[in-house]
Amino acid sequence: SYKTNDAFANRGMTLEKEIVESNNYYLESGKAVIHKKPTPVQVVQVDYPKRSAAVIKEAYYQKPSTTDFNGIYKGKHLDFEAKETKNKQSLPLTNIHPHQVKHMKRIEQHGGISFLIIRFTIKDETYLLPLEPLLVVWEQQELGGRKSLSYPFIKEHGYLIPFQLQAKVDYLSIIDDVYINGGD
Amino acid sequence: SYKTNDAFANRGMTLEKEIVESNNYYLESGKAVIHKKPTPVQVVQVDYPKRSAAVIKEAYYQKPSTTDFNGIYKGKHLDFEAKETKNKQSLPLTNIHPHQVKHMKRIEQHGGISFLIIRFTIKDETYLLPLEPLLVVWEQQELGGRKSLSYPFIKEHGYLIPFQLQAKVDYLSIIDDVYINGGD
Ligand SMILES: [Mg+2]
Ligand SMILES: [Mg+2]
Repeated sequence: SYKTNDAFANRGMTLEKEIVESNNYYLESGKAVIHKKPTPVQVVQVDYPKRSAAVIKEAYYQKPSTTDFNGIYKGKHLDFEAKETKNKQSLPLTNIHPHQVKHMKRIEQHGGISFLIIRFTIKDETYLLPLEPLLVVWEQQELGGRKSLSYPFIKEHGYLIPFQLQAKVDYLSIIDDVYINGGD
Repeated sequence: SYKTNDAFANRGMTLEKEIVESNNYYLESGKAVIHKKPTPVQVVQVDYPKRSAAVIKEAYYQKPSTTDFNGIYKGKHLDFEAKETKNKQSLPLTNIHPHQVKHMKRIEQHGGISFLIIRFTIKDETYLLPLEPLLVVWEQQELGGRKSLSYPFIKEHGYLIPFQLQAKVDYLSIIDDVYINGGD
């Protein structure tokens, strides 16, 4: 047992933290309203000490049923998942849960924009991969295909996210190019 | 200390639970994708027992920085807060946090739809109150005005949400009338 800010949430924290910081910049500059969804926790036992805050004494992390982030940008609903890998050559699909893919499909069916942000830590490259190419690989996997998103595939079908001083993961610049200003 | 599902979250649970159930119906029937945001929890201490799930041993509820629910409906970003009161004549504004109002304003500035769902438990009436009339009262409060949303005000500027068997709080029917099909 040890003290921590939030050990579970810390897995893959660098990318997530940089996205949260980018979102803060977007929020403060009036560009977009995008928030990280809190990690769901199932609370089993709570203490209510007199005159002070309730203390959760037993609780468990729950599997998130959706994705990491959502919000609004230029009238569009955005919903996405951030994934970081130390692999050089691919992101294994085991990193993505079937219910997350289902959720992302629903978002786009209702007119939203859904995508992955994938960081190859060792290469220090971060990509925005739209839902569509993810789905191609996802569905081929179910038919016995490759069980990962390869780096060359991500490079070909995704978009390298530029680093900016104020938005270290400046994914909205890609959203502009690909989804808002009519892409390709 | 006692066992509970989630005692804190249980405050005002009836309305919230009915909205969650309505959202499940909307989701399963392909109508909309709206989720409750998990209550944010600050984790201080975690145990990692061998071969079993991490156990949170000390944690605290945090004030949510946004609202209860968000999602997408007919291409529109929806974001709202549910409030239940046992008062007969008003909902005190102390039930609504300034940062929530700020958040709701931002959502509408970016082209989303933001509102309150307010239940008068004793009357068993549930209203959708758009952001605009809320803001009028909110800003008058800051100038020394009334510190609550009165029942007659809510009745006049809000919309009674119908009860349906499958969506007990069928707020999307109001969204259709007021926001999508051109209202008033
Ligand atoms: Mg993630
Ligand atoms: Mg609430």
